[in-house]
Amino acid sequence: MKLIRHGAQGDEKPGLVDRDGGYRDLSAIVRDIAGPALAREALDRLRMIDPESLPLLPKETRLGPCVGGTRNFVAVGLNFADHAAETGAPIPSEPILFNKAPSCISGPNDPVIIPKSSAKTDWEVELAVVIGARASYVHANEALDYVAGLCICNDVSEREWQMERGGTWAKGKGCPTFGPIGPWLVTLDEIPDLKALGMSLDVSGRRMQTGSTATMIFDVPQLVAYTSHFMMLEPGDIITTGTPPGVGLGMKPPRYLKPGDEMVLRIDRLGEQRQTVVAFDDWTAKVSSGEPTD
Amino acid sequence: MKLIRHGAQGDEKPGLVDRDGGYRDLSAIVRDIAGPALAREALDRLRMIDPESLPLLPKETRLGPCVGGTRNFVAVGLNFADHAAETGAPIPSEPILFNKAPSCISGPNDPVIIPKSSAKTDWEVELAVVIGARASYVHANEALDYVAGLCICNDVSEREWQMERGGTWAKGKGCPTFGPIGPWLVTLDEIPDLKALGMSLDVSGRRMQTGSTATMIFDVPQLVAYTSHFMMLEPGDIITTGTPPGVGLGMKPPRYLKPGDEMVLRIDRLGEQRQTVVAFDDWTAKVSSGEPTD
Repeated sequence: MKLIRHGAQGDEKPGLVDRDGGYRDLSAIVRDIAGPALAREALDRLRMIDPESLPLLPKETRLGPCVGGTRNFVAVGLNFADHAAETGAPIPSEPILFNKAPSCISGPNDPVIIPKSSAKTDWEVELAVVIGARASYVHANEALDYVAGLCICNDVSEREWQMERGGTWAKGKGCPTFGPIGPWLVTLDEIPDLKALGMSLDVSGRRMQTGSTATMIFDVPQLVAYTSHFMMLEPGDIITTGTPPGVGLGMKPPRYLKPGDEMVLRIDRLGEQRQTVVAFDDWTAKVSSGEPTD
Repeated sequence: MKLIRHGAQGDEKPGLVDRDGGYRDLSAIVRDIAGPALAREALDRLRMIDPESLPLLPKETRLGPCVGGTRNFVAVGLNFADHAAETGAPIPSEPILFNKAPSCISGPNDPVIIPKSSAKTDWEVELAVVIGARASYVHANEALDYVAGLCICNDVSEREWQMERGGTWAKGKGCPTFGPIGPWLVTLDEIPDLKALGMSLDVSGRRMQTGSTATMIFDVPQLVAYTSHFMMLEPGDIITTGTPPGVGLGMKPPRYLKPGDEMVLRIDRLGEQRQTVVAFDDWTAKVSSGEPTD
């Protein structure tokens, strides 16, 4: 099952993707793809609905982040051996956790805004895990029971603010639009092998990142279990699980995002994201003048 | 105005404190002390209500965290010169930011649970700022316009997990019950001088922390402004602003919390918190047997 959230920003409604790739509205069935709707039993009830019986939405409908109500947006650092190498960091002996501000979450195809005074905005294609049930001190062999599904996340990062401004990485990870999520929340039954998902990210037509979940240092069940020992995970929380090689920071010389760049992110079975990069000033000018922004 | 949230855990209702210290119910007026109810105009409307006209609640009512719906719980590290010194860290040149998982938030007098396998659970009395309006790229001289009010926060910390487990501090800061918030959300009109609030924390009758907001390195307006440049702050978000000297980690030898300890936290004009420390196993045993837990 592929769940979506559709409509205007901040006012998204629930939906799903039918067999032909059409968007169908679930507003009459559930309030949102969030909280209790993410529980195993609730997902099973949705699965019994004939998608053809649901209202078809226009193809051009805006997709919002595929899960709502996220409070804890956890990210895992340096979780691909090759990516750790490209940044010059040692392979971590246990997962590195940091937070993205939940206010950075945006739709899969919304513009990504380069923050005010930023010179080092970078991309990171990642597999994100959406929690479906409250998880505390969970073991890895039962961890998937607490997962509602998976989606793509672009862990957009400002490298100077992440690494040169003191303290933890939070400063460079949570700027507005730094967390495109979606297009779909894909339930686990659609994913035969979590460890064999190809991943890629293109910037303006050039392939930058190529990877596979096969090379993750800590896998999805390990990450859910590990995180749940340090903090209670709740329905709608997201753990984004780290990026494969090919970020701008790792290039020689480094290559960062500039206005007009287009990012295309793909993960097998999870669909595609497509974001245009815009300058902060252009963006705010458009918002002030009432022009459409996407 | 002193706002409270009262009732059973997870089902708290809004209220306020009357002139005599009595708790009054605001359920008929606002849905929660959260989101839109934290806007300046909404607070002004509450201020016009005669507290005597509201239903009086029993004195023994449980107080929940004084704000609901918190998504981003930001904390500031080493923000008191003396505390930085006691931990052996240099004075930061700009604020150190890290995150506490929002699921760690608890009521001001709820028990604090020592996590499973923890040996280094520590206390930190802090002044917490509750955001009242969406704040992005705010200047320090207007930052207080975005603040709904202040409260006490115990930034409970597991020192081994914070500092010896790799990556950022998140692992030792967000365990369940590591964020007692309250008792009251105190609006700014009740606080004549933000830079002259005495702070203290006692453990089992012994004074451990004594401080004042006068010795903060970065003050409240600076912290709100600074944070808002890296992430958009939303109503209900919390910034807890760092702790004065006297944490267990800084003692020689270090002294950590043990079951049966009682913590009492006080900040001038913000009231008092009182927490009993319990072992994880005792706590879960009580929950399983259906015994009352507080």
